[in-house]
Amino acid sequence: MTQPWEERAKAKRNAILAAIPEEWRIENPPVNQQVDVTGKYVQQFLNEREIEITETAAEGIVGRIAEGSWKSENVARAFCHRAALAHQLLHCLHEVFFDAAIADAKALDEYYAKHKKTIGPLHGLPVSLKDQFHVRDVETTMGYVGWIGTFEGKTGTEKEKVFESEMVRELRECGAVLYCKTSVPHTLMSGETVNNIVGYTLNPKNRHLTAGGSSGGEGALIGIRASPVGFGTDIGGSIRIPAAFNGLYGIRPSSGRLPYSGMANSMDGQNSILSVVGPLATSAGSLKLVIKALLDKKPWLHDPMVHEIPWREEQEQGVREGKLCFGVLRSDGIVNPMPPIRRAVDMVVKALLDQGHEVIDWTPPSHQPLINASMQTWTFDAGIDVKRAFALSGEPMAPQIDFYSSIDKEMTASEIAVVNVNLRTLKKEYLDYWVSTEKKTGIGRMVDAVISPLAPFPAARRERYKYYGYSTWVNALDLTSVVVPVTEVDKGVDKVVEKYEAIDENDREIQNDYDPEIYDGAHVSLQLVGRRLQEEKMIAIAELVGKVVGK
Amino acid sequence: MTQPWEERAKAKRNAILAAIPEEWRIENPPVNQQVDVTGKYVQQFLNEREIEITETAAEGIVGRIAEGSWKSENVARAFCHRAALAHQLLHCLHEVFFDAAIADAKALDEYYAKHKKTIGPLHGLPVSLKDQFHVRDVETTMGYVGWIGTFEGKTGTEKEKVFESEMVRELRECGAVLYCKTSVPHTLMSGETVNNIVGYTLNPKNRHLTAGGSSGGEGALIGIRASPVGFGTDIGGSIRIPAAFNGLYGIRPSSGRLPYSGMANSMDGQNSILSVVGPLATSAGSLKLVIKALLDKKPWLHDPMVHEIPWREEQEQGVREGKLCFGVLRSDGIVNPMPPIRRAVDMVVKALLDQGHEVIDWTPPSHQPLINASMQTWTFDAGIDVKRAFALSGEPMAPQIDFYSSIDKEMTASEIAVVNVNLRTLKKEYLDYWVSTEKKTGIGRMVDAVISPLAPFPAARRERYKYYGYSTWVNALDLTSVVVPVTEVDKGVDKVVEKYEAIDENDREIQNDYDPEIYDGAHVSLQLVGRRLQEEKMIAIAELVGKVVGK
Repeated sequence: MTQPWEERAKAKRNAILAAIPEEWRIENPPVNQQVDVTGKYVQQFLNEREIEITETAAEGIVGRIAEGSWKSENVARAFCHRAALAHQLLHCLHEVFFDAAIADAKALDEYYAKHKKTIGPLHGLPVSLKDQFHVRDVETTMGYVGWIGTFEGKTGTEKEKVFESEMVRELRECGAVLYCKTSVPHTLMSGETVNNIVGYTLNPKNRHLTAGGSSGGEGALIGIRASPVGFGTDIGGSIRIPAAFNGLYGIRPSSGRLPYSGMANSMDGQNSILSVVGPLATSAGSLKLVIKALLDKKPWLHDPMVHEIPWREEQEQGVREGKLCFGVLRSDGIVNPMPPIRRAVDMVVKALLDQGHEVIDWTPPSHQPLINASMQTWTFDAGIDVKRAFALSGEPMAPQIDFYSSIDKEMTASEIAVVNVNLRTLKKEYLDYWVSTEKKTGIGRMVDAVISPLAPFPAARRERYKYYGYSTWVNALDLTSVVVPVTEVDKGVDKVVEKYEAIDENDREIQNDYDPEIYDGAHVSLQLVGRRLQEEKMIAIAELVGKVVGK
Repeated sequence: MTQPWEERAKAKRNAILAAIPEEWRIENPPVNQQVDVTGKYVQQFLNEREIEITETAAEGIVGRIAEGSWKSENVARAFCHRAALAHQLLHCLHEVFFDAAIADAKALDEYYAKHKKTIGPLHGLPVSLKDQFHVRDVETTMGYVGWIGTFEGKTGTEKEKVFESEMVRELRECGAVLYCKTSVPHTLMSGETVNNIVGYTLNPKNRHLTAGGSSGGEGALIGIRASPVGFGTDIGGSIRIPAAFNGLYGIRPSSGRLPYSGMANSMDGQNSILSVVGPLATSAGSLKLVIKALLDKKPWLHDPMVHEIPWREEQEQGVREGKLCFGVLRSDGIVNPMPPIRRAVDMVVKALLDQGHEVIDWTPPSHQPLINASMQTWTFDAGIDVKRAFALSGEPMAPQIDFYSSIDKEMTASEIAVVNVNLRTLKKEYLDYWVSTEKKTGIGRMVDAVISPLAPFPAARRERYKYYGYSTWVNALDLTSVVVPVTEVDKGVDKVVEKYEAIDENDREIQNDYDPEIYDGAHVSLQLVGRRLQEEKMIAIAELVGKVVGK
């Protein structure tokens, strides 16, 4: 292990590229020359059939395969091809295993030919995975150079390239085809995806911007339509940020709904605010498809942290019948959203009102203590765990996560207990507020969902992700949240605010980062936040909101 | 606050006694003169009507009141009277508020007279509460002298004698009548109930023995039939121990099923193994009655830690239809149960086999690491929290909990993280074992419930509670467990084992504590352990097992 980290990183970087077939190699144009690589740009490298397949949502894909009009193998090849292009343009993959995927897809086609039925609800569906999932025959580096060739930094565990995470097993049983693992920021603790192996993951719609993080590779890959659906994780926004920045649907389920068992993680064992796993996809229906498929496998029999709550149709039903009530959070009072986000909020509110739904102002207890508590939990161990991972190779931390270098004192049991009691108290206050809206709405029911920014910006500019408050409050409260794409930045409409009245210097600085020229064309998304463990209902509401804004 | 702790304790002790009406005062005979104070003994102080009422199970009581044949007031008076006797014989109450109870009962009778219906499913049901619940107009001391006249040790909080715990609010809404709060060991961390205010809580069936702990006052009170149902809490056995030692049904639900919000606690904020709240009662049906009533109040709208899982009838239904499969744990291999416990296991196994159910040996992963992990979580903070409570008054710790005096180093965040990861791993291994029994049973389904001792003894002798392993493994795994009364010690049958082959010295010492003369007549109970969040199913199974053993 005396090899310099630069060489190890380079070897891994080259190995990822080497796994891409020669015939799928392309030139990567400079960012300024080609800002947007989605749509026509990436389509030029694909044939018509590949374009049709890759631009179909997950539920469409499984439908075509189930009815026999598409073959799993063709679907797998199309997505592998597009993923190869995506990685070359965006640096979004950590592991590439197209051969295994195509072999699995062939086996599924054989099964279908023989049995005249699918093997499960995801038969032939390509599914991409954030590089925290362990998949046999490939590594999990989580962006750490020191994890290359190891199992979570250790060797001789007998788990290397053999062990699979629980959800991987379930996805395979459902018939999903696994073909790649996607990039993350080392430590996972950033809204930008950057590490010393693949570098910086770019936003396909606007390569001036980040693809988001920490499930940034997922965001980029699905954003460019090189995956129909993929799984990320979220402890402070890491599913929702890349979903929002790439114009996707993405759900942060409450903890205990989907199986996290057997995944690599940072600061594993911190259990005050748990990281959760959930899907990102191009439609709300795709989120439902994969979550329902997984819940039908009874994950509570295989992951002791999963609650025995099957998919509840009746929760969706409630949404489809009649009038809903929304709360709208236009600003959290700490940092104001940029103009395109504000416009997106107005669009959603107007569209819902036009459909006869009710929208009231959301004036909850301050989010500041929730944001503070989240940050505290991320630094309980003063970064001991992540520093250990960096020390394995001697690689440097990216500037995006260097807040870990300035701390060195771990919290004690009684200090952590104070944080836990505080979090519980804050949750109670927030819930009480939520329930109190029953008396504020015209229809005598509490708010069904809160329309909220997910970040103050459509996407962050490089090294300018300065505020996480719009995503972390949801984690602190363990609520259900679904990101919904709303619109795109239009520099002709989304002007800089003249004489902006800033809340404070921090707010001014963030607002100053808004540059219509740079942001033009970027995706603008919002989140819909529901109470804890409301996954079915929130996906149904996300579908409804997506429809009313025309997405 | 310069008053010596002895004086403050004595004043409080006298105040509790003073709340008992003169006409209900009795002499307390010496233990040796009157070992068993249940049945005929306590009945001598009650009239026939009072005996009938107090010896009716909760579901019977609410039924009679609902049909109009009993009045809430009479029911309340009968239980208050019997509770007054119980406290004088057993030292089981911390707070006595009979006047408030009778006033509430009268109001319920008026409601019933006016509306010709009950106010809720617990209309007129007396419910006792462990002294962790905050109830208006009375204190919560949790047995700490330093908490007398405070709110959880603090003054000037504006919560003193005003604030009520969430479940108290729900119980009142359901129509329950609250009339007393029951004794606990200071710190709550003992299977014996002892503190410097009320002293030692005795087992009504056999006053040589403990009533159990930490919900020991509940155990004693319900055991002598001075309460039909009460609520305790359980972090290492504290509901199940007093239930078992007093021949009662008691459930330790999984965490997140019932609302703990707004209760006093020890080491609050330790969230690796959570204390849970649950009922103890004289029948399985009573457990169902109160849990279903509470879940119907949607506690997840008022306690953010409660999962949105309503009462699931279909889980009960499954139990009533057809053959069940049980695992039997005769010994955990660390400490062997005493002869009466072993006999009880044999009785249950035989009775179930006779009914056509299946019983297989339960050979799970070792319980030792689970027990160790439990103990670690109890001492994360090296007792800082409990020592602070003792320091308020200067009172001494009881010997039962003096393990706190020998530790002084708190665990750090990364040490706690290691425990958390270990616990999760152990849960996963245990769950995998559980699911694997699908292949071991004759009926192709996994074990429905594990028949297990709850302690190596029918009840502990004073200061001889030396092994908690049979209760704590359930907490470490967060499983559902219901205690079921099985039989009583019969000194003619339950002989000392000649030439006992001890596992080790600790095992020998515990086995040596078995003395048929002392234990004669004591309750013998077992627990039925189910998977996590299986409350409905496990209550139904407990009812079934209770029936087959004739309880």
